[in-house]
Amino acid sequence: MYLHSLFFFFFLIMKSYYIEQNILYVLDTRRLPFKEVYIPIDSINSGFEAISKMKVRGAPMIGVVAAFSVAAEALNKGVNKEKLIEGIELLKKSRPTARNLFYALDRILPILKLKNWRRKILSEAKEILKEEELSSKKIAEYGYEVLPDKGTVLTHCNTGSLAAPGDGTALGVIIEGVRRGKKLEIYITETRPRFQGAKLTAYELKKREIPFTLITDSSAPFIIKDVDVIIIGADRIALNGDTANKVGSFSLSLGAKYFGKPLYIAAPTSTIDHQIKTGDHIKIEERDKEEVLKINGRWLTFKDINVKNIAFDIIPGSFIQGIITEYGVISRPYTKNIKRVLDAILPDKP
Amino acid sequence: MYLHSLFFFFFLIMKSYYIEQNILYVLDTRRLPFKEVYIPIDSINSGFEAISKMKVRGAPMIGVVAAFSVAAEALNKGVNKEKLIEGIELLKKSRPTARNLFYALDRILPILKLKNWRRKILSEAKEILKEEELSSKKIAEYGYEVLPDKGTVLTHCNTGSLAAPGDGTALGVIIEGVRRGKKLEIYITETRPRFQGAKLTAYELKKREIPFTLITDSSAPFIIKDVDVIIIGADRIALNGDTANKVGSFSLSLGAKYFGKPLYIAAPTSTIDHQIKTGDHIKIEERDKEEVLKINGRWLTFKDINVKNIAFDIIPGSFIQGIITEYGVISRPYTKNIKRVLDAILPDKP
Repeated sequence: MYLHSLFFFFFLIMKSYYIEQNILYVLDTRRLPFKEVYIPIDSINSGFEAISKMKVRGAPMIGVVAAFSVAAEALNKGVNKEKLIEGIELLKKSRPTARNLFYALDRILPILKLKNWRRKILSEAKEILKEEELSSKKIAEYGYEVLPDKGTVLTHCNTGSLAAPGDGTALGVIIEGVRRGKKLEIYITETRPRFQGAKLTAYELKKREIPFTLITDSSAPFIIKDVDVIIIGADRIALNGDTANKVGSFSLSLGAKYFGKPLYIAAPTSTIDHQIKTGDHIKIEERDKEEVLKINGRWLTFKDINVKNIAFDIIPGSFIQGIITEYGVISRPYTKNIKRVLDAILPDKP
Repeated sequence: MYLHSLFFFFFLIMKSYYIEQNILYVLDTRRLPFKEVYIPIDSINSGFEAISKMKVRGAPMIGVVAAFSVAAEALNKGVNKEKLIEGIELLKKSRPTARNLFYALDRILPILKLKNWRRKILSEAKEILKEEELSSKKIAEYGYEVLPDKGTVLTHCNTGSLAAPGDGTALGVIIEGVRRGKKLEIYITETRPRFQGAKLTAYELKKREIPFTLITDSSAPFIIKDVDVIIIGADRIALNGDTANKVGSFSLSLGAKYFGKPLYIAAPTSTIDHQIKTGDHIKIEERDKEEVLKINGRWLTFKDINVKNIAFDIIPGSFIQGIITEYGVISRPYTKNIKRVLDAILPDKP
């Protein structure tokens, strides 16, 4: 009884980060699910390391960590504008695919021209965080309606509190569905090579006492036969709806198409890239082979073999049933409807 | 120079098994790639254990091990026919999907009615082995022609010497292509949950000094964009060409279809199930959750979570460009053309 109450309490307050004396502390996702260790984002270097080494991941969370790392650096009086601009350029190289990284940094850059820029960068970082939290909330509210009252939902990678402030994007939608009493059977993919599903999504759902079933990535397209709806996140969305997301998403979209099941993207509009018309222009990150070959510190097989380790792939917009954003669910045709949403957003947001 | 010759020598003689005093010894694939340990198949129990615990796997090899385990048991004078029939029934429960298991055992059962059945079962086991070796050879000879002279080929799981006597099925085709001077870039999938690609196919290709690139399973359908041909094995083929194979095969077939790349199945006709018209009738094995959750003896995540661990999935026949058998490449329409091949095979083979 006591234990149950404790978990219920956690259900409400689960946070993957906190702020103390203007410094952002985030859970090191590489230590999860077994160890909960918070790391301070107290400089551009610590932000760069957290992002590039994937201590934090998930497009919205990457943007927030980048912003706070610049803010922390700016509060150091010994750092001048030139140094800070250099640092921002460095951060832009931390990971290539998540749109939100560039979105956040491009909001901060112009502030350097203002008075009291040191303080104002901190305010902007806090504002970005607040907006992403609100986005998660709105996405969940718009998104839960696409879930059946009773049925099966499949998600990929981790898109919960560890990926985005608040309850997250795709996982936030599912959590909202459960919270509102929907009877959902939840399939989560393990998500090779880093196992964000098996480690992080499992951690979040277990914390919240929400039952789920883990499956291997390659079985997911076949299992979609028995699934009602697929909801996943996004790292970058082109203007025609083509969406880069964690590798394996493309194969899920093929399975969804084959079995005639709806696949939704859940992502804040900060993930939409205004500069690119189609997914052909999205740069796909290739990561180190060790990420594939070494599991929990042990070599899986020979160290010296070639590995091609793409971190993302691209879903054709035509395979996506809808894009759940903080402004509502965008449906096809995306070229027209994404533009309509972007035009409605205040022009001062890049 | 010396080392190179040594490897070249191995290239020619690599064997995943040997026979000594009528007992079959097979490489324990669970110890690979780091340890080469041969285990004796000297009783039905040892055969059952080797198959059910996946010390040996691969449809043709499962059939051979089953046959030799019955032969070894039969050579024990203390074992009567009834015991042997019980043992055969037990073996049929060792794994459900591989057609070759039932093919081999159904060839042995009628021998029990003959004189000198103890010796004759051994002869039949040797005959099955010889046939599978010859099948591998013929499959390679028919199959290598579907490979480009210079290009990229993708395969899944392990279908080499460790899966079938000789050089194997799908991997045997690729090896034959290399042997005949084709310039092939080879992609192999790691194949969760047991990593037969990362461990076994990597082991075989490394032994043969054939370069390759390892990829995660979920990235394969997207990477097919840059691949010329996909060749995989089969565990059971229905009369309409629907094919059960290692989980992940279905998603490869979707990728192949989407990018318009040919996907071939390479399998001996012993893998064709005469009893079933479509893949709907193929029983798909679900295996233990520990297989997913524990890697190299360590828990990946929480022990107590639900896992759905399907070992196979089914490719629609319409997505298959051709089925490479020991009698040549069968092409569509499969219902007609598979029947034609089966009718041409001597009627005394089940």
